[in-house]
Amino acid sequence: MKNFYSISDVVDLNRLIEKALFYKANPLVDKNLGLNKRLGLFFMNPSLRTRVSSQIAAENLGMRSFVINGSIESWAMEFDENAIMNGTKVEHVKDAVGVMSSYFDILALRTFASLKEITEDNSDFIFNQFVKYSKKPIVSLESALLHPLQSLADLITINEVLNRIQLNKKPKIVLTWAPHIKLIPHAVANSFSQWVNYWGESEFVITHPENYELDNAYTQNAKITTNQEEALEGADFVYVKNWSSYKKYGEVIPIKEDWMLNLEKLKVTNNAKIMHCLPVRRNVEISDEVIDSENSLVQQQAENRVWSAQAVLSEIIKSNG
Amino acid sequence: MKNFYSISDVVDLNRLIEKALFYKANPLVDKNLGLNKRLGLFFMNPSLRTRVSSQIAAENLGMRSFVINGSIESWAMEFDENAIMNGTKVEHVKDAVGVMSSYFDILALRTFASLKEITEDNSDFIFNQFVKYSKKPIVSLESALLHPLQSLADLITINEVLNRIQLNKKPKIVLTWAPHIKLIPHAVANSFSQWVNYWGESEFVITHPENYELDNAYTQNAKITTNQEEALEGADFVYVKNWSSYKKYGEVIPIKEDWMLNLEKLKVTNNAKIMHCLPVRRNVEISDEVIDSENSLVQQQAENRVWSAQAVLSEIIKSNG
Amino acid sequence: MKNFYSISDVVDLNRLIEKALFYKANPLVDKNLGLNKRLGLFFMNPSLRTRVSSQIAAENLGMRSFVINGSIESWAMEFDENAIMNGTKVEHVKDAVGVMSSYFDILALRTFASLKEITEDNSDFIFNQFVKYSKKPIVSLESALLHPLQSLADLITINEVLNRIQLNKKPKIVLTWAPHIKLIPHAVANSFSQWVNYWGESEFVITHPENYELDNAYTQNAKITTNQEEALEGADFVYVKNWSSYKKYGEVIPIKEDWMLNLEKLKVTNNAKIMHCLPVRRNVEISDEVIDSENSLVQQQAENRVWSAQAVLSEIIKSNG
Repeated sequence: MKNFYSISDVVDLNRLIEKALFYKANPLVDKNLGLNKRLGLFFMNPSLRTRVSSQIAAENLGMRSFVINGSIESWAMEFDENAIMNGTKVEHVKDAVGVMSSYFDILALRTFASLKEITEDNSDFIFNQFVKYSKKPIVSLESALLHPLQSLADLITINEVLNRIQLNKKPKIVLTWAPHIKLIPHAVANSFSQWVNYWGESEFVITHPENYELDNAYTQNAKITTNQEEALEGADFVYVKNWSSYKKYGEVIPIKEDWMLNLEKLKVTNNAKIMHCLPVRRNVEISDEVIDSENSLVQQQAENRVWSAQAVLSEIIKSNG
Repeated sequence: MKNFYSISDVVDLNRLIEKALFYKANPLVDKNLGLNKRLGLFFMNPSLRTRVSSQIAAENLGMRSFVINGSIESWAMEFDENAIMNGTKVEHVKDAVGVMSSYFDILALRTFASLKEITEDNSDFIFNQFVKYSKKPIVSLESALLHPLQSLADLITINEVLNRIQLNKKPKIVLTWAPHIKLIPHAVANSFSQWVNYWGESEFVITHPENYELDNAYTQNAKITTNQEEALEGADFVYVKNWSSYKKYGEVIPIKEDWMLNLEKLKVTNNAKIMHCLPVRRNVEISDEVIDSENSLVQQQAENRVWSAQAVLSEIIKSNG
Repeated sequence: MKNFYSISDVVDLNRLIEKALFYKANPLVDKNLGLNKRLGLFFMNPSLRTRVSSQIAAENLGMRSFVINGSIESWAMEFDENAIMNGTKVEHVKDAVGVMSSYFDILALRTFASLKEITEDNSDFIFNQFVKYSKKPIVSLESALLHPLQSLADLITINEVLNRIQLNKKPKIVLTWAPHIKLIPHAVANSFSQWVNYWGESEFVITHPENYELDNAYTQNAKITTNQEEALEGADFVYVKNWSSYKKYGEVIPIKEDWMLNLEKLKVTNNAKIMHCLPVRRNVEISDEVIDSENSLVQQQAENRVWSAQAVLSEIIKSNG
């Protein structure tokens, strides 16, 4: 593994999941693997889980981590090639990433979609500028399009459940759109779809209101329906997430029907486990009673972020010596 | 010791003070006690002494510390139960503290009083929401009502002085109100009162203008007077601090008399030592000449914050395994 | 070495450069020198290279580093003596630096020139208030007047080049003014001039438009010309940097001629190496083609910031025990 951006960077998904679970059982087994190596964490957006879990993962491998809050502590960054820098941007990505990648052994970046410039978001422009100018491996801490450390943690969590409950068929996994109060990027939904599709060990259904279709580069052969109730029927896992319209990019399209997940709606499921990447808007996306129920996996997903990051960092260190 | 919030969490105050002084003399004596343990420091308000002294204390015990500037780097937090989260708050304390307490072995929180909602402040609502949802011990880095790491450092400092000067009676400790330019919380004053009362080895006097009575849950049997000069007479220690009116909560009540502590006023004391938790408004709360005098203990108090934190973290680690 | 503020703090410049280059070849050779010592990094302004390179340098010596973003995480600071602190400033430098210098073994400070109060900037008032009130060595991470860790990194870089290319005469080093879009401090230009002059192993030429003369306390006997082309002729190194007018302090004086460095202008040089401290305004100060050319040393300068800081911290630790 050189960079970590999407499922394409994974050589063997099941081995990666096993590795993460092995680290969960033995956090310090590779505590010297990253000795004298440095992880730089560059945040262009807020973070709680991602920041802390990545730092812990690095530390478990003996690495030192350095957090840079890009917009707050450092210089406003220019991303456009050939820009005449006579505006508010103080340093070009070419120079800043050149420097950071000489200081760090692995550089990790969080950058959200603008939800304004579809071309820029669709090319994951900012993330790829980091890749282009870095001398060292780049790890995504969520980019405009994808959130792979989250998706890996999600699959780790699903596998933990399946190891315990033993279904006699492939699980039915439903990704359901949920309401929100503002425009939200597609990264978590795209990424979950991409990873579940690649994994292939499920019946995968996506449900959302009209106009909320995801890019089919990620949804691929998943069954897609605008009927949430039908989608939930017999579900073993329900992943709840809002995303804004991709078709009508950057527009708020009001939804009249009730898409919030509550206990009533879950009755048609197969006693489904509930997933969400957090932070969650309680009683907007999901009702309190669902998220606080025994079937909720949200805390387990968050905890598994540590092992997801540790498995990935470990792979990168081993591949890049 | 499970959590550390008030004097009630202390089993044996004199032993805790001795332990802190032992650490001051032998900072690294327990350098392996916290090995592979993590302290999370969550700040909802600014901090200099508290942040750094807690980090050093953790490090002296072999722990790793992680600072999260809540409002700046992470997500705006909702504290109300059953909230319909359709406003500006992005994540519920229930979820955020759940996650943080799975990442950290001890979670520490700074949250100031709003000085707007007396009911909320009086129940130390935010702090207690952290306690309620945490799976791990919670340490106060100052809450709406109390600042126990400061009070412990204050008592350590007083004990150091008494070990040196040897009075032939219980020392007279005076907590005097001082002027300020804006509304200030009661936490330091409440907490100092609570700890000095529990300690019991002094004649404790509190002086303030009318309308500035503290909650008597903390002042208890202390002698209280609005006559500053009378209070200062024969004082061995003078703790200077502003607080806003508790009676007329959130209101600014102008004071005509001169309450700033200066050298002139100290003449009636028994060559009193001067204390303040810092930061101090010089020449508003105390004159330069007093705070820069040989009798000033403010730097010693600040330095003792390290040993106060180290003793507390050590107790918590030992109690929680 | 007690403090590190200017060339005057250096006992033997060539030995310091050699030491830095030795650390570059052997980063961890002194990994126990700073064990159980703490470096505090206090930033009153943004930083990328300085923050990270200083932290890595400290870590290579076994020290722990603590970053404090002064204005963001801590309290607004008062610098004036005898101030009546009834305004927006919460803590006096006397108290804050007293405390920090009891917590840390070395305290480092970044504070930019205001470019408003010439007297304050010219006395490096804020930096010197830190020196005045600190109980421990103070390291400049750039002050109003100077940026010594940058200048040392610059001389390390020049020496690396000279060790490789072997000129048969002293190199011609040209410091050329470059355009910018706002008022920029003089620290980098002053400091580079001061260090190059002291080093003495070059023909040193400074070129800038009229009204942009630097303080001659730093330029000393350097040849100064307003003819950029003449200055560049035969240059072996061209250091590009904007600074605002010192003569007409705080004023923007528009320049009609074209001072941006481009390839065309470099034709008269001796295939000159290009230097800049970063961050750089591309296509305003220097054209892309120059800064991206093989002759550009900017990334090497940035990388050498680690070894510059490591050599300085090492000297300070050894001198202060």
